[in-house]
Amino acid sequence: MVVATQSLEELCINSIRFLAIDAVEKAKSGHPGLPMGAAPMAFVLWDKFMRFNPKNPKWFNRDRFILSAGHGCMLQYALLYLTGYDSVTIEDIKQFRQWGSKTPGHPENFETEGVEVTTGPLGQGIANGVGLALAEAHLAAKFNKSDATIVDHYTYVILGDGCNMEGVAGEACSIAGHWGLGKLIALYDDNHISIDGSTDVAFTEDVSKRFEAYGWHVLHVENGNTDLAAIAKAIEEAKAVTDKPSMIKVTTTIGYGSPNKQNTAGVHGAALGADEVALTRHNLGWQHEPFDIPQDVLGHMNKAIDRGSSYEAEWNQAFAAYKAKYPAEAAEFERYLSNKLPDGWDKVLPTFTPEDKGIPTRKHSEVCLNKLAPILPELIGGSADLTHSNLTEIKISGDFQKGHYENRNVHFGVREHAMGAICNGMALHGSGLIPYGATFLIFTDYMRAAIRLSALSQAGSIWVMTHDSIGQGEDGPTHQPIETLASLRAIPDLTVIRPADGNECSGAYKVAIEKAKQHAPTLLAFTRQNVPNLAGTSIEGVAKGAYAIVDCQGTPDIILIGTGSEVSLCVEAAAKLTSEGKKVRVVSMPSWELFEAQDAAYKESVLPKAVTKRLSVEAGSSFGWAKYVGFGGDSVSIDRFGASAPGGTCMEKFGFSVDNVLAKAKALLG
Amino acid sequence: MVVATQSLEELCINSIRFLAIDAVEKAKSGHPGLPMGAAPMAFVLWDKFMRFNPKNPKWFNRDRFILSAGHGCMLQYALLYLTGYDSVTIEDIKQFRQWGSKTPGHPENFETEGVEVTTGPLGQGIANGVGLALAEAHLAAKFNKSDATIVDHYTYVILGDGCNMEGVAGEACSIAGHWGLGKLIALYDDNHISIDGSTDVAFTEDVSKRFEAYGWHVLHVENGNTDLAAIAKAIEEAKAVTDKPSMIKVTTTIGYGSPNKQNTAGVHGAALGADEVALTRHNLGWQHEPFDIPQDVLGHMNKAIDRGSSYEAEWNQAFAAYKAKYPAEAAEFERYLSNKLPDGWDKVLPTFTPEDKGIPTRKHSEVCLNKLAPILPELIGGSADLTHSNLTEIKISGDFQKGHYENRNVHFGVREHAMGAICNGMALHGSGLIPYGATFLIFTDYMRAAIRLSALSQAGSIWVMTHDSIGQGEDGPTHQPIETLASLRAIPDLTVIRPADGNECSGAYKVAIEKAKQHAPTLLAFTRQNVPNLAGTSIEGVAKGAYAIVDCQGTPDIILIGTGSEVSLCVEAAAKLTSEGKKVRVVSMPSWELFEAQDAAYKESVLPKAVTKRLSVEAGSSFGWAKYVGFGGDSVSIDRFGASAPGGTCMEKFGFSVDNVLAKAKALLG
Repeated sequence: MVVATQSLEELCINSIRFLAIDAVEKAKSGHPGLPMGAAPMAFVLWDKFMRFNPKNPKWFNRDRFILSAGHGCMLQYALLYLTGYDSVTIEDIKQFRQWGSKTPGHPENFETEGVEVTTGPLGQGIANGVGLALAEAHLAAKFNKSDATIVDHYTYVILGDGCNMEGVAGEACSIAGHWGLGKLIALYDDNHISIDGSTDVAFTEDVSKRFEAYGWHVLHVENGNTDLAAIAKAIEEAKAVTDKPSMIKVTTTIGYGSPNKQNTAGVHGAALGADEVALTRHNLGWQHEPFDIPQDVLGHMNKAIDRGSSYEAEWNQAFAAYKAKYPAEAAEFERYLSNKLPDGWDKVLPTFTPEDKGIPTRKHSEVCLNKLAPILPELIGGSADLTHSNLTEIKISGDFQKGHYENRNVHFGVREHAMGAICNGMALHGSGLIPYGATFLIFTDYMRAAIRLSALSQAGSIWVMTHDSIGQGEDGPTHQPIETLASLRAIPDLTVIRPADGNECSGAYKVAIEKAKQHAPTLLAFTRQNVPNLAGTSIEGVAKGAYAIVDCQGTPDIILIGTGSEVSLCVEAAAKLTSEGKKVRVVSMPSWELFEAQDAAYKESVLPKAVTKRLSVEAGSSFGWAKYVGFGGDSVSIDRFGASAPGGTCMEKFGFSVDNVLAKAKALLG
Repeated sequence: MVVATQSLEELCINSIRFLAIDAVEKAKSGHPGLPMGAAPMAFVLWDKFMRFNPKNPKWFNRDRFILSAGHGCMLQYALLYLTGYDSVTIEDIKQFRQWGSKTPGHPENFETEGVEVTTGPLGQGIANGVGLALAEAHLAAKFNKSDATIVDHYTYVILGDGCNMEGVAGEACSIAGHWGLGKLIALYDDNHISIDGSTDVAFTEDVSKRFEAYGWHVLHVENGNTDLAAIAKAIEEAKAVTDKPSMIKVTTTIGYGSPNKQNTAGVHGAALGADEVALTRHNLGWQHEPFDIPQDVLGHMNKAIDRGSSYEAEWNQAFAAYKAKYPAEAAEFERYLSNKLPDGWDKVLPTFTPEDKGIPTRKHSEVCLNKLAPILPELIGGSADLTHSNLTEIKISGDFQKGHYENRNVHFGVREHAMGAICNGMALHGSGLIPYGATFLIFTDYMRAAIRLSALSQAGSIWVMTHDSIGQGEDGPTHQPIETLASLRAIPDLTVIRPADGNECSGAYKVAIEKAKQHAPTLLAFTRQNVPNLAGTSIEGVAKGAYAIVDCQGTPDIILIGTGSEVSLCVEAAAKLTSEGKKVRVVSMPSWELFEAQDAAYKESVLPKAVTKRLSVEAGSSFGWAKYVGFGGDSVSIDRFGASAPGGTCMEKFGFSVDNVLAKAKALLG
């Protein structure tokens, strides 16, 4: 296959290939196979179709690109470099996978401008892509006018066999088909190789037929290695079908061009080795040194800069016209993009006194969501088929459905994992949307990878989780969270809030909305069952993570630390202990992370070192509580799986009663 | 639809319906809709096809039944009661969803004999079913002879729309199609209703076509409400196709018979209410009081007892003949079923001295697996497409594939979640198999629901997790576990072991295999990178969870507590501190759970209360470590996301160096 003379297009494609080959070789680590095989489709897509502005990677109306097969990230870095992004220079490429580089081992949106979302954990990228396409459809429906279009872009995804085996991808593509997101175009790099070898060992399903079953428009490029015209034709056809997402199966050869390693798992995730690199150079007729890209190639690929500048200028003009005609809508659109909250938005959040009737915190959540919905039209989301249990419906809106993309109630179906990744996609659309996703707290286990990625990739998603303890009741141990709060608190950069009552629910939403705008996710845990409104709770208290709601003169004999539905037990126990002459403080601690963010003086003021008798009360695992109660303290907790019985019975039987809190407190007091 | 006279079959079906209706009504909690709609298919299946012995629910060669739509559990309890199982009496049914009952809110194999696996979290059951079918195929291929069949049963699953939306179900069904598991038959209760209402709101894909794409044999019963003959014919046809799993879409009406609530979400998850129950009684012509079942029905359904007794007697005869002809195989088969380990099995586990070359613990894991494989032929499993990274191949075996079910290397594909649930299914087959599933430690996030269920449902799966820290290196933060160990340690009844070297890897496998036979799962965390073999480590030490491997005379000034790859840092730091005159103990703590299971005296001997200067060293989150280091101690830990760089660089930069351990220790020593 020695190539004597190469067309400019071939040179461009080989440039991508050799940037990947040589960067991986230098790092002695990485995945050359995908970039080598997918370079043709990526080149055609970026050169002939994608609308973006390298000099303003955040230009709103750009087409979004996601490399769902994130291990092939050198493909994306090569494209960013060649098309003139400032974020990836040739020096950055030489630093591939090194400490502090802009070219980490998988694409990370928070490290590298031009990368839209963080991929690597397989299947997430395509599901994020559904979220981006949802965001586009929603904003287009909301803002575009019959005579003025300001939201109009495609979302392109390259995914591989690995992504297509993951359940999260199946979930996301099923719902994308249901929604008919016509501007979502996925290119499936069908190379028949995964890490264990040929996909014959584990993946012989008919992927195209499956996507047809999902309601997608499905195409096939039989020779994705060299038939650039066929790739272009397929993308054209995909764009022309506007009522369905399109999946283009592009059959390629992994590691294309490597005479001994192409079409083997050996080229997937390891450097080729010097000998094979030399053979590949020879085979592909590539006479350039590592990291030396022909000027013709740079000259051609850099045309993206002028093109991008024109695209943006055109759009700016269109937006100016829109603004002239529709000033109110334009102002709102600009507020969305500025990511700013409207003045006084938080004034709508209700407050309560102990005289107000106790209701479940999930109902407080419903009230907060519905108070916020009118003033924050950017709030959009829903539940994984538990809308009327999670109480997450926005009552002033209809359902987000095909033909009704302007609506804000999203039915994700029983697809928790895809819900998570789709919300992350919406958040990372960069248009100010505040997505929320809801299910039972226990089912965060199904979507944990997406929750983690919300924290890692700075996606300001809000996770609304109800039925937050054994108080869930009759559904039993499969549905009752025990270790769940601990497992979520352990995730870096995720704020977990478990409010005790109405005031704290308002405080929780205040924090969550603000954090969303700061690109940080929040997980809210709400009860199924009634809780009383307590004296001393406050919106401001929640913001500090922990605060005293019952206190004594001088140094307390004991501090009772409660969260959520168990704070009221602490208050009742404290009253009893006080009546018996003990000095008692009750600390409501809705959020560990918010408390840890306070200064040392505040922390000492709430939990003074001098007080070693501390009792935590939370209807969940004691795991982690030693940090606050120490060797001198104790926990009222449940460290086994729950049981099926009415919620009140479960609480009582497992020791979440005033009597048991009292007994444990007295044991500590000695 | 008032029914004047009813056939015996109709009476049986209505008995199932009203047991469900009345039990939910009495509990004022539960899901009547599915049992009412699926009663006909369940009746036909249990009455005409299923081979089981109510008086010996554990009879080996029984057909397995899984209600993947576990919320409909009253269906299963009704069947168990009517067919004569002792585990569910009419009194048990009256106690539906009450504290301590045998009839919890979802089917729990550990509570109710006759229930094979624990369902409720949607999609798990069908994936467990793939595991049961895999186990059957494997054992049949291994033990059956051309003239003697002792393993020969079907696995039947009823699943609903919810299951079919879940990614884990898609993953499992894709691989089941690949494997061609012909004795797996799924009945899809196609009732068009999920909790949010009509499936039209979120689930409009062509499910049958999707299963065809997976390579399944697909059938459709158009009238699953009353056409019993069509249901029976479909099951017959499904059984006749032996090289593909079969999916029978059975179109039904949820809540069939309830005049005002059938075919609505209102009947899915709540009691009908007294008025509607009365109307339903009238509508279905049911004149019996709650929990009063006609004698004709009991008489007919109880025939399962005699049938079952005959089935078992036939099988016992067949097995006796097999035993006479193939005594060695029969003995092995009996050992499998006895769940006993062969004598001396653990003697094959290697031990090491510090002179032995340091290698990654994942390589020690590979050695252990391959030492154990010959003596424990019941060990079967594999990786989610990372076989040669996880190093989980059994070298004396080929791959488990269609036509080669006797083999033990299972390629799960990039389907972590299904892998987890399939392993659980194998474990719960009750035939002594020890399943293992492997991926990178970080990707436990993808399969967490299955790991939790392994602990809850007493499935002795072994989770082999490699690349257990930022030492993973270049793949970066998406692939580097931080909070992962903490999040897994928090799960009740799961033993997590992170061995430090070769001896501890042997110790870890010894525990994991023993626990598997005691129906408890173990998660093993192994390094990607080299670790030295240490003095003082031992197989026995691992069994105790934590033990001193370096010690001093008298009370230590400080205790360094390490796990896994960081124990060697502690040893080096201790040597330095000792040379400076400090009294230092190093505790290797491969497993918190095993340590917690020791008596107080042992725990005090390892971590004496008198020593408050304690430093934990683990390349992961500090979350939870306060339990062992207290207010007086500290942790060398990483409480942020990692970074893409060579593993050694990551370790150094994030403070996992002898110097930093020394610095932190000295700070504590003051």
